[in-house]
Amino acid sequence: MSPEPIFDIAHLGHVELLTNKPEASLDFFVNIFGLTESGREGDSVYLRAYDDYEFHTLKLTASNATGMRHVGYRCTSAQALARRVAAIEKLGAGIGWTDGDLGHGPAYQFRDPDDHVFEIYYDTKKYVAPLSERPALKNQPQRNHRRGVGVRRIDHFNLLATDLEAITAFMPMAMGSRITEQIMLDTGKLAGSWFTHNNKSYDVAYTRDATGTHGRFHHLTYALDQREHILEAADIFLENGVFIETGPHKHAVQQTFFLYVYEPAGNRIEVANAGARLILAPDWETVVWTETERKKGQAWGLKTIDSFHTHGTPEVPHKA
Amino acid sequence: MSPEPIFDIAHLGHVELLTNKPEASLDFFVNIFGLTESGREGDSVYLRAYDDYEFHTLKLTASNATGMRHVGYRCTSAQALARRVAAIEKLGAGIGWTDGDLGHGPAYQFRDPDDHVFEIYYDTKKYVAPLSERPALKNQPQRNHRRGVGVRRIDHFNLLATDLEAITAFMPMAMGSRITEQIMLDTGKLAGSWFTHNNKSYDVAYTRDATGTHGRFHHLTYALDQREHILEAADIFLENGVFIETGPHKHAVQQTFFLYVYEPAGNRIEVANAGARLILAPDWETVVWTETERKKGQAWGLKTIDSFHTHGTPEVPHKA
Amino acid sequence: MSPEPIFDIAHLGHVELLTNKPEASLDFFVNIFGLTESGREGDSVYLRAYDDYEFHTLKLTASNATGMRHVGYRCTSAQALARRVAAIEKLGAGIGWTDGDLGHGPAYQFRDPDDHVFEIYYDTKKYVAPLSERPALKNQPQRNHRRGVGVRRIDHFNLLATDLEAITAFMPMAMGSRITEQIMLDTGKLAGSWFTHNNKSYDVAYTRDATGTHGRFHHLTYALDQREHILEAADIFLENGVFIETGPHKHAVQQTFFLYVYEPAGNRIEVANAGARLILAPDWETVVWTETERKKGQAWGLKTIDSFHTHGTPEVPHKA
Amino acid sequence: MSPEPIFDIAHLGHVELLTNKPEASLDFFVNIFGLTESGREGDSVYLRAYDDYEFHTLKLTASNATGMRHVGYRCTSAQALARRVAAIEKLGAGIGWTDGDLGHGPAYQFRDPDDHVFEIYYDTKKYVAPLSERPALKNQPQRNHRRGVGVRRIDHFNLLATDLEAITAFMPMAMGSRITEQIMLDTGKLAGSWFTHNNKSYDVAYTRDATGTHGRFHHLTYALDQREHILEAADIFLENGVFIETGPHKHAVQQTFFLYVYEPAGNRIEVANAGARLILAPDWETVVWTETERKKGQAWGLKTIDSFHTHGTPEVPHKA
Repeated sequence: MSPEPIFDIAHLGHVELLTNKPEASLDFFVNIFGLTESGREGDSVYLRAYDDYEFHTLKLTASNATGMRHVGYRCTSAQALARRVAAIEKLGAGIGWTDGDLGHGPAYQFRDPDDHVFEIYYDTKKYVAPLSERPALKNQPQRNHRRGVGVRRIDHFNLLATDLEAITAFMPMAMGSRITEQIMLDTGKLAGSWFTHNNKSYDVAYTRDATGTHGRFHHLTYALDQREHILEAADIFLENGVFIETGPHKHAVQQTFFLYVYEPAGNRIEVANAGARLILAPDWETVVWTETERKKGQAWGLKTIDSFHTHGTPEVPHKA
Repeated sequence: MSPEPIFDIAHLGHVELLTNKPEASLDFFVNIFGLTESGREGDSVYLRAYDDYEFHTLKLTASNATGMRHVGYRCTSAQALARRVAAIEKLGAGIGWTDGDLGHGPAYQFRDPDDHVFEIYYDTKKYVAPLSERPALKNQPQRNHRRGVGVRRIDHFNLLATDLEAITAFMPMAMGSRITEQIMLDTGKLAGSWFTHNNKSYDVAYTRDATGTHGRFHHLTYALDQREHILEAADIFLENGVFIETGPHKHAVQQTFFLYVYEPAGNRIEVANAGARLILAPDWETVVWTETERKKGQAWGLKTIDSFHTHGTPEVPHKA
Repeated sequence: MSPEPIFDIAHLGHVELLTNKPEASLDFFVNIFGLTESGREGDSVYLRAYDDYEFHTLKLTASNATGMRHVGYRCTSAQALARRVAAIEKLGAGIGWTDGDLGHGPAYQFRDPDDHVFEIYYDTKKYVAPLSERPALKNQPQRNHRRGVGVRRIDHFNLLATDLEAITAFMPMAMGSRITEQIMLDTGKLAGSWFTHNNKSYDVAYTRDATGTHGRFHHLTYALDQREHILEAADIFLENGVFIETGPHKHAVQQTFFLYVYEPAGNRIEVANAGARLILAPDWETVVWTETERKKGQAWGLKTIDSFHTHGTPEVPHKA
Repeated sequence: MSPEPIFDIAHLGHVELLTNKPEASLDFFVNIFGLTESGREGDSVYLRAYDDYEFHTLKLTASNATGMRHVGYRCTSAQALARRVAAIEKLGAGIGWTDGDLGHGPAYQFRDPDDHVFEIYYDTKKYVAPLSERPALKNQPQRNHRRGVGVRRIDHFNLLATDLEAITAFMPMAMGSRITEQIMLDTGKLAGSWFTHNNKSYDVAYTRDATGTHGRFHHLTYALDQREHILEAADIFLENGVFIETGPHKHAVQQTFFLYVYEPAGNRIEVANAGARLILAPDWETVVWTETERKKGQAWGLKTIDSFHTHGTPEVPHKA
């Protein structure tokens, strides 16, 4: 009998992004992207999409840097959290416990092999809508204001890393991650890996940092309900002068319909729609894309834009 | 510490529907609904949507009756299957093992409190596309012919039952089901319960059989990627003379965008789109709708059509 | 040789609606419907959708009544206006010239056989966007704020009338209207007529007023770009507590995808999408629907809601 | 008083395309694009979309060449046809009368300044659906089979020309065309002009042929009802191995949502959706785009693909 799959991680909880243009970034996330502020503390503003059930999914922190300070994942139970902590400690990757913040209780922090900071937690603060934010339908945590793009919920994030093999070995051991798709270069080296912890086809992707830098951030994604909403988002970004990097188009990898923009501090932000695609098979076999296949571009032929391989935050000098 | 949630059931695998008009039903499912035949044996034709990863998700069996003969769920591992069998045997609901069929290996069968037949299994036959069915994108099991409605994958099913309290007590014990939404009448009696075994907001619903009959079937649903595809499906059904019962509209319960038709033998079939809505919280609290709330009709005010409470298969006489 | 079709009327220009709840109505049209205020004078606020090229398309006037005070059509040239005035005077329907208002120059007013006031004009005031309203794409008159429903442009309106035969005879003579579709009852009486003056399949519809009252208003419609935007509009109306009368659904007549609501004063307002359907044939033959055909309901089977036959503004008592 | 606008041309009627791969082209147009064959004569197959009201809109002719043999426009009346013939004769562009073909009666042919052949006619053969092609809704000429892409109706076409100034002067005089948008290079030379004869924002576009050749064809476009249908078309083209040149994306010019492919003989074919955008103003002022503005690419930033400036049919050698 094969070992059982691990169900200890419930879902991506939140990402903490750094911005060196805090006012402009906050204006972008609230008025153009459509998030709602749920709290403030110190240099951070807590933000949420209308169908996120937790207090926040984005912690936006003023800084002189950009990029991701940490990412949080919620476990499926207190017992599951304890199992993951034990596994991570055995891997020697642990940093230790924090008390949590406005959005959740005690969290255990660790580093991935590329030096990004993760935390896992179980105790959380569920969002309770004040009167003015009560939705018409009670199975939704918050009123949908349809302000700007009006994103529905956090979806996934993407990190850059120099050693994809190390990441791809680490994640299943630390987090119980399953690898749903991969890009394998002709050299036999991995150029990208997509991981999931539930039925979404991925909640974290890693792609190769061509600059050789560690700990960089590629993008954070929120989900919209329909592909048409991505097209409308493009119109809203256009009308508001937001830099559109590429899209809307459909990824060949994972088949997600995507649109990438930069928020004012330069962090790459995506809106995406996966249609009805889910990974339901508990024994899904990793789909491996070759270098030749990837050269065909995206699903409908759009060539992958150069900056997609080079732009990350914090920004670093790179040769053209 | 609370007990951990159960992750033994991976997903709804297939439904076996009975038809007393086998040729017309098969024509409907293949040419209008867009399923592909993957095999035949005895009185049964095995059918699949293009993104179903297993051999089949619908077993259509010629019979002098209509309704559902059985439903199958795939477990997350062999160990998980063993745990569920033990739990069901303890409940005294078991029927016993079968050898499986063209689509999967050994399955353990049991009855729910309303006499519907379920089976659970782990060994399955994954679909391997013959050359003519190879998709352009390798992360999809089969070519999308976009024939008729062209559904993507099996989504959920709905059974009728006389004692919703019994069902609602049974399912979590037998299957580890979580109850995501419910309708509670002013009498304190349940009129409907929606259950999930993964991140979909439901994969099985039970609603009250007003006729007091046992073991009846309400509907089977396949997912489409976009709400617009549901609207197109309505046009296709209209053009092909398929009886449209109600929709397209948005359910208040679960917020699914829906469209219900009857296939030629009278079994109710739905196409639906859930947008990006998922149940990611491992400790989701059941949303309970009151009788008053349900009287408002569906999300945008459409009144629930009368036949929705009376029509099931097999059909039984009922008072208007 | 047949006489040539008449091309004197360019398009529906604007509707003046009366409201006895001016503040609530204005809030609805600006913040929920998404119109922009372009001017104020006396008891009237001038409003426009972002792709309307004229100064305004809705004149909202505070009053102790509700319903439509007048409707304006723009002619294709000064010569065309003179021809229409001559034709209308010959019909004895003329009221006379006005100086126009904030939105356009001299207009000639007349009454239809049911006592609704029409005006036709050529000199108009094109909208010139102030800096804050400049669009990103210069082929669009105004920035699309995507505020609330965010309608694109005025589309059509619908009046009630007691004698449809009189209307159907009058409009082609007065306005050069072409009748694209009709409903003929088994009695041989008309119950509805749809007229166009350009390539839209209709810009004015008349339906029978079951109450026998004259001069009432049925609804005013703005166009959205996609059917999905109509579905989003339904969500926005739901979230904002706007009364949804019926829809979204697809009309059998004209195939328009529709959604009807009441603005706070009770005037019925529609958002609609016609897809790519246009009437391009200069010799289009009127499509006549029978009573039996109309009893099938809308395109996908939705029964026409009772209030659709009785509710108009101003409201009048009627028997159930 | 300004002269009146001319309403003599009703709409684009049909295009005759040449193919040197007649079987493959026919298979493409019928089984992938979704047209229906309405007749055959000599080397030509007559094809139509389900909402085209005339007998055909595409005449596909086997040849050893590719490109467009002629384009036909229907006039608004017999009188209008006579007026246009007189105007064209005065311009010295006339070829003379033909008897028409399977799809229409007598037509007057002429050449544009770049040597493309046009014809105008009034007598036409309206499509009468045989029993098997009768639609469910009687206001539609033919059943919608939703076969492949399933386009709705012919929309527009695009020609290449060497002297845009000559074209732009000729069309209004010959056809009464209105110029809705233009591209003006920094040199003061035109690079593109979009013309309309009704409320569509354009039914013919001319763009500069960088190769200096005369009489070449750029693309033919059919309309789909929704932007989502364009996305589905992309999936269908992908699944069927059709070469996708560029898109889906939104044009800055005219704001049309587009997707370009090559049919097997190399003729460029487009599917497009204009949303609810119409040109209703009888005195629309030409929107002029500068070279700088066009360098921004399409609406959401997609760079115009190089082949868009060089590929036309028949193909000619060109320098990279």
